[in-house]
Amino acid sequence: MVRCGIVGASGYSGAELMRLLAPREDVALEVVSAATSAGKRVDEVYPSLAGVVDLTFGEFNPSQFDGLDVVFIALPSGEGMKVVPELLERVGHVIDLGGDFRLQDMKLYEEYYGHRHSAAALLPSAVYGLPELNAEKIASAQLIANPGCYPTSAILPLAPLLKTGAISPDGIVITSMSGVSGAGRSASVEMSFVEVNENIRAYKPGRHQHIPEIAFVLSGVAGKNVSLSFVPHLVPLTRGIYTTIHARLAGAFTRDEMLRICSGFYADAPFVRVRQSIPQIKDVVMTNFCDFTLVVEERTQQVIVTSTIDNLIKGAAGQAIQNMNIVTGLPETTGLLRKEAHYV
Amino acid sequence: MVRCGIVGASGYSGAELMRLLAPREDVALEVVSAATSAGKRVDEVYPSLAGVVDLTFGEFNPSQFDGLDVVFIALPSGEGMKVVPELLERVGHVIDLGGDFRLQDMKLYEEYYGHRHSAAALLPSAVYGLPELNAEKIASAQLIANPGCYPTSAILPLAPLLKTGAISPDGIVITSMSGVSGAGRSASVEMSFVEVNENIRAYKPGRHQHIPEIAFVLSGVAGKNVSLSFVPHLVPLTRGIYTTIHARLAGAFTRDEMLRICSGFYADAPFVRVRQSIPQIKDVVMTNFCDFTLVVEERTQQVIVTSTIDNLIKGAAGQAIQNMNIVTGLPETTGLLRKEAHYV
Amino acid sequence: MVRCGIVGASGYSGAELMRLLAPREDVALEVVSAATSAGKRVDEVYPSLAGVVDLTFGEFNPSQFDGLDVVFIALPSGEGMKVVPELLERVGHVIDLGGDFRLQDMKLYEEYYGHRHSAAALLPSAVYGLPELNAEKIASAQLIANPGCYPTSAILPLAPLLKTGAISPDGIVITSMSGVSGAGRSASVEMSFVEVNENIRAYKPGRHQHIPEIAFVLSGVAGKNVSLSFVPHLVPLTRGIYTTIHARLAGAFTRDEMLRICSGFYADAPFVRVRQSIPQIKDVVMTNFCDFTLVVEERTQQVIVTSTIDNLIKGAAGQAIQNMNIVTGLPETTGLLRKEAHYV
Amino acid sequence: MVRCGIVGASGYSGAELMRLLAPREDVALEVVSAATSAGKRVDEVYPSLAGVVDLTFGEFNPSQFDGLDVVFIALPSGEGMKVVPELLERVGHVIDLGGDFRLQDMKLYEEYYGHRHSAAALLPSAVYGLPELNAEKIASAQLIANPGCYPTSAILPLAPLLKTGAISPDGIVITSMSGVSGAGRSASVEMSFVEVNENIRAYKPGRHQHIPEIAFVLSGVAGKNVSLSFVPHLVPLTRGIYTTIHARLAGAFTRDEMLRICSGFYADAPFVRVRQSIPQIKDVVMTNFCDFTLVVEERTQQVIVTSTIDNLIKGAAGQAIQNMNIVTGLPETTGLLRKEAHYV
Repeated sequence: MVRCGIVGASGYSGAELMRLLAPREDVALEVVSAATSAGKRVDEVYPSLAGVVDLTFGEFNPSQFDGLDVVFIALPSGEGMKVVPELLERVGHVIDLGGDFRLQDMKLYEEYYGHRHSAAALLPSAVYGLPELNAEKIASAQLIANPGCYPTSAILPLAPLLKTGAISPDGIVITSMSGVSGAGRSASVEMSFVEVNENIRAYKPGRHQHIPEIAFVLSGVAGKNVSLSFVPHLVPLTRGIYTTIHARLAGAFTRDEMLRICSGFYADAPFVRVRQSIPQIKDVVMTNFCDFTLVVEERTQQVIVTSTIDNLIKGAAGQAIQNMNIVTGLPETTGLLRKEAHYV
Repeated sequence: MVRCGIVGASGYSGAELMRLLAPREDVALEVVSAATSAGKRVDEVYPSLAGVVDLTFGEFNPSQFDGLDVVFIALPSGEGMKVVPELLERVGHVIDLGGDFRLQDMKLYEEYYGHRHSAAALLPSAVYGLPELNAEKIASAQLIANPGCYPTSAILPLAPLLKTGAISPDGIVITSMSGVSGAGRSASVEMSFVEVNENIRAYKPGRHQHIPEIAFVLSGVAGKNVSLSFVPHLVPLTRGIYTTIHARLAGAFTRDEMLRICSGFYADAPFVRVRQSIPQIKDVVMTNFCDFTLVVEERTQQVIVTSTIDNLIKGAAGQAIQNMNIVTGLPETTGLLRKEAHYV
Repeated sequence: MVRCGIVGASGYSGAELMRLLAPREDVALEVVSAATSAGKRVDEVYPSLAGVVDLTFGEFNPSQFDGLDVVFIALPSGEGMKVVPELLERVGHVIDLGGDFRLQDMKLYEEYYGHRHSAAALLPSAVYGLPELNAEKIASAQLIANPGCYPTSAILPLAPLLKTGAISPDGIVITSMSGVSGAGRSASVEMSFVEVNENIRAYKPGRHQHIPEIAFVLSGVAGKNVSLSFVPHLVPLTRGIYTTIHARLAGAFTRDEMLRICSGFYADAPFVRVRQSIPQIKDVVMTNFCDFTLVVEERTQQVIVTSTIDNLIKGAAGQAIQNMNIVTGLPETTGLLRKEAHYV
Repeated sequence: MVRCGIVGASGYSGAELMRLLAPREDVALEVVSAATSAGKRVDEVYPSLAGVVDLTFGEFNPSQFDGLDVVFIALPSGEGMKVVPELLERVGHVIDLGGDFRLQDMKLYEEYYGHRHSAAALLPSAVYGLPELNAEKIASAQLIANPGCYPTSAILPLAPLLKTGAISPDGIVITSMSGVSGAGRSASVEMSFVEVNENIRAYKPGRHQHIPEIAFVLSGVAGKNVSLSFVPHLVPLTRGIYTTIHARLAGAFTRDEMLRICSGFYADAPFVRVRQSIPQIKDVVMTNFCDFTLVVEERTQQVIVTSTIDNLIKGAAGQAIQNMNIVTGLPETTGLLRKEAHYV
C-alpha cells in the first residue's frame, strides 16, 4: 500500500490526482491540504468526487504528512519550494508538479520565473520526472520535478529525432495551443467564460518559463546545445494541449525512417503512441497518452511534428502518478491504463 | 463470460457501448456491425479506441450473432424493429437502445414516430428497461426496450413523487436541454459546429416522441393517468441532459419530506443520487448517475425538480449495460461504477 | 444632439451602451464612470472599442453629469438606488438598467433582492421601460426602469395572449436559458471558462428576483392577478436568452388566431417579430429584436411559447437606448436597426 | 449606384457578402445564385437576414448577371474558373473569393489544388486583391482574385518587414488557427459540433494550398524568393483566424523600430492596426480589421509576429467589398467601418 498526500489539492491538478488515486486499492490517499478550501469536504468543492474521495481539505501542516511514502505538490510555481525542504525530511518521496525544481540553473529560474529561488540547494538532487527519458534516475530519486505540460508535449516527439541527428538542434520552432484548465482554478476576469469563449490569444511569446525547461532537457538528449522558440496560445476548450513543431531536417531521412526511429525509441513506453495520421486532442483527452506524428516538407527541408496530450493527465497528474509508480516499484502503468476512461 | 454484439455500432451510443464493454474481463464483445462503416476497423473511425477494441465493423448479418448472450441494437428508431425479430430467434437477449419497443400502444407509436410498426407482435413481450423501476421484469426478459434519454432524466425524479401522491398527475411541465451527441453521428448542416455553437433552439415542442413514453411509464407508477407537456432544446455542449420539471404539489409535503421520500425510494438504486444542492451536468458527465433535487415554490404550490444525466451513459449505453448486468445475473453496477471515470 | 453619460460603464451592459451610442452622430457620450476601472482608457479595457470610444473611465462624481440629457445606470441592483436620487436633480432623464426601480412594491423588492430599498420615495414616479407596452408613459418619464433580460423575453410574447384572454393567468411556467454575459463582468471561479463550459445548471429556482417583475407587469396587462413559476439556467454561450413558456389555453383559440393576435398587437413594434417557425438565438444575437412563436399542445390544452433575445441588447443596452430615443423625441429605432449588424 | 450579384451566395462567405451589402444605399444587390438552395428565399436559409435581404436564390444563369457592375464569386475553389470566363464578358468586374485566380503559375495551382485549371488564359490579367499592397492595380482590374484568409493574416504583417529587410526571406514559419466557418457551410461528420468541440487538429501540414499564395505575394514584396512553412489548425470557435509567425531577424532592428516600420507602411491603410499589445480574436471579430504586433526573441534572434482577422470579413467578404469599393471608385472604407459592428 502506497500512502500518499497532496499539497494544494483543490486546484485542477490536485483534483485530477485525487480522481485518479482515490479509486486505487494499492494506494491510500491520506492527507489533502488546500489553503483556500481548508475546512471544506472534497465533494463540496468537487461534487463529482462524491463517493470517490472521503476527505476534508486542511491547512498545510507538514507534520500531517509524516511518514507518507509519496507527497505530491500541486501548488503554483514559487510555492513548492517553500514546503519541499521540510517535507523531504518527513516523507519518502516528493513529486512537485510545479516548476520550482525543473531547472538546474538557478539563474535561469530567476530570469524566467521572476522571483528568487529559496531552495536552490536542493536542485542538484532533483530528478526531472519524464519517465520515457529518465526512468532509471526517477526510480531512485527522493525529489522528482514533474515536467511542465508544454514541455511534455514537445520533448517526447523531439527527443528521438535529436538523439539520432535527424533534425538540427538549431532553429526549432514550437507553437502550442492549450485548453483553459492549464491556467488553473482561480477567479479572474481574464479566464472567465465570456473572455475566453470565441477567442484565441498568444501569451508570453518568446519568454514563457517552459522555454529553458525544454531547451535544457533536449540539450541533454542531443548532447549539444538545442536552441528553440516557443509561443503558447489559450484556446476555448477545457482540456488538452496541441503542439506543432518545425525543425530543420538534418540528413537524408524519410518520413517513414523517422517514424520508425520514434517507434523504436518508444518501443517500451506504454504512453507514447507514434501515429501515421495527424493526431487530435479528442484521441488523448482523459488519458495519459501522448500521440504524435510528423511529416517532411520537402520544399523547405523542414520536419513538421504534431503532438497532443491531456494537459491535466500526461501534462500533470497522470505523469506524476507514473512517476509515483516508478519510484515505489509498481508497474509504470498502474492505474493509468484504464481503457474505459478513453473518451469517444 | 457474457458474449455480446452490437448492431449499429458506429454511432455515438454504439461507440460508448464499445468503450464501456471492451475493457471488461467478464464480457466478450464479438461482433460489431455498422452499415456505413462496414469494412473499417473500429479504431480507424474512433482513434481513441485504439488498443481498446480490436474489431472491424461488418455489414449486418443476423447469423453472425448466433448464440450470443446479449445483442445491443444501437440503430435509429424505425430500424430496430427490422432486425429484432430474427435476432430474438438466435440470441439470448436483445437490448434495443432505440424507441421501437418502448410504447405498448402501436397507434401511439405510429402517431409520434411517423411510420408503421412492423413488429408489433413483439410489443407485449418487451420490457421497459429502467432498472430502478423494473428490475424484476428485466431479469427475466428476452427483449428489453432501453429507455430514451429524456425519459430517464424525467421519470427517475417524478416516479417517487407520483407514487406517494406528493404531486398531481396533471399539468406536469418538463423542459429539457440536451448536448449535441444526443442527435447522433451523422452529416448535416443543422448539427454542424457553426450552426450549433453560440445557439439554442427548441425542437418538436409538444410533439416529441418521448412524450408518450414518459406519460405511459409514469401512469403505471402513479396508478392513474399522468398528463404532461415536454419541450426539448438543443444546446452547445457535447454530452449531458438537464431537465427542469414543474409539478403541482398535491398535499402538505415539505421539501425535506419529499427528498426523504425520494431517498427512500432509491435506497437500493446505486445510480440515483438525491441531492440537497442543485445538480449540474459536470457532476454526472462520463458516469451512469442521475442526480436530482427539488424545491417547493410556496407561492404557486409548485414542486420544481432539476435533474441531470449523461445522455450517452445513463441515457443510453450505460443503462443498456446496467440492463445487461441484470439480465445475465451480474451485479447491477458491474463495469459502471469505475470511480476513476468521474470527471473533474 | 442628445448629451449622455453612463454610470458603471465598464461592465458588459455598459460596454454595449458605449458600442451602440458612440458611433451615433445625434448623440454625444460625454462621461463614463466605473469605479473598478477608473483612470483607464476605455480602449484599454475593451480593445475592440479603439477608434470608437475616445474616453477615460472616471470615478463616479455626480457633478460631472450636470446638465446631461440622459444618464444610463449600468450598476448591479442595489447600487443604482444610491446614485439615482442625486442624479435626478442634475440631469434630464435617468435610465436604470438595474432592478432597483422596476418593482412598485418595496416589500417585494426587499424580499427578492435581499436588501433594504434606500430610495423608495422615487418608486411611484419610475416608469417601467418596456416600450412595446409603455411608450406613452416612457415619453414623459424622468426616471425609467429598464426591464430585466428574462422579463423582456417572457412579457413580450405573453402580453397579447393575456390581454385577449387566450391563456389563463394562472399556472404559467417559464423556463429560461441564458448566456454567460448575463452574469456580468467579474472575477469568479463560478463563471470561469472551465466551470461553465460543457455544463448547465439551474439557479435560484422559484426565487429569482425577476419573478415579481414579470408577474407585476403581466398582471397589469391582464387586468387580473397573474401567477407564474420561473427557473433560469446558465448555459455555455456568450450572448442570448432562450425562453420557453407553458400556459393554459383559456378558450377555443387556434395557433393561427393567436399568432394573428400577437402580430396585431405588435403591428407598430419594430423590434418584435412574431414567427411561424421556431426561433433560435442565432437569429437575434447582435440585434434589438425579440423573436417568438407559439404552438398549441392539443392533448394538454397548453400553449407553448418559445422566445429569444440578445440579453445585452433587447435585454439591456438596446432597450435602454430605445427608451432614450423615446424620451428624447427621436424615432424609436434610431441607431438600433442597423441591418448590417445582423449576425449570420 | 453599384449594381451587383453573387454566385454561390448561400455559403458563409456569400451570406456575409449579403449581410454587408444589402443595407448599403449605394449598392443594389440584384442577383444571388446558389445551386443547393435554388428556389428558397434568402431569409428561409438565413432567418437573421429577414428584413435585410429580400431576394430568392436562383440557379446559376450567366445571362441574369448581364450588365451588373460587380459580380462576386463565392464558390469553392475549382468552381470559380468554370463561370468566370463567361461572366467577364457580361459584367463590369468579377471578384473571385475562391483560389482559382490567385496563383499566376498554373503548375503550382494544379499541384496544390489537385485539379486542372480550365481558364489559365485569364491568369495574367487577374489582379491579387490585397488592397494594402495592390490598390492601384485593383482600381483598374476587371478580374480580382480576392486573397485567401490565411494569406491575408500572414502577408499583412510580413510585408513591411520583408520589404525593409528587417527579417530574412528564408525559414519563415507560419502557424495558424482557424474558426470553423472557414470550412464553409456543408454537411459532414468531420465538421459536426461533436467532432469539433473540445478538439484541435492540424490539417494539410506543409501542403496547404495557401502556401504558394503567401510565398508568391511575399516574394514580390521582398524582391527575392521567400521560403516558408505553414500549418493550419481547426479550433472550436465560429469566426476568426489567429496566426503566429517566426522569422529570423535580419539586422539590428529593435522591436520599436519594426513596429514603426509597420505603422509607417500602413499609415494610409484604414484596416490594419499595428498594436503594442498582443492581439486577440475578440478584438477583430465582426470587423474588417487586421490587428498585429511583434516581439523580438533576443536569445534566438527570431521575430515573433501575432496577427488576427475575422476570416469571413477581412479574410473573405469584407476584403471583397473593399476591393469592390476601390474598383468602383468609392472610398475604400465604405460600408466597412461601421463602428457599431465592433464586438464587445
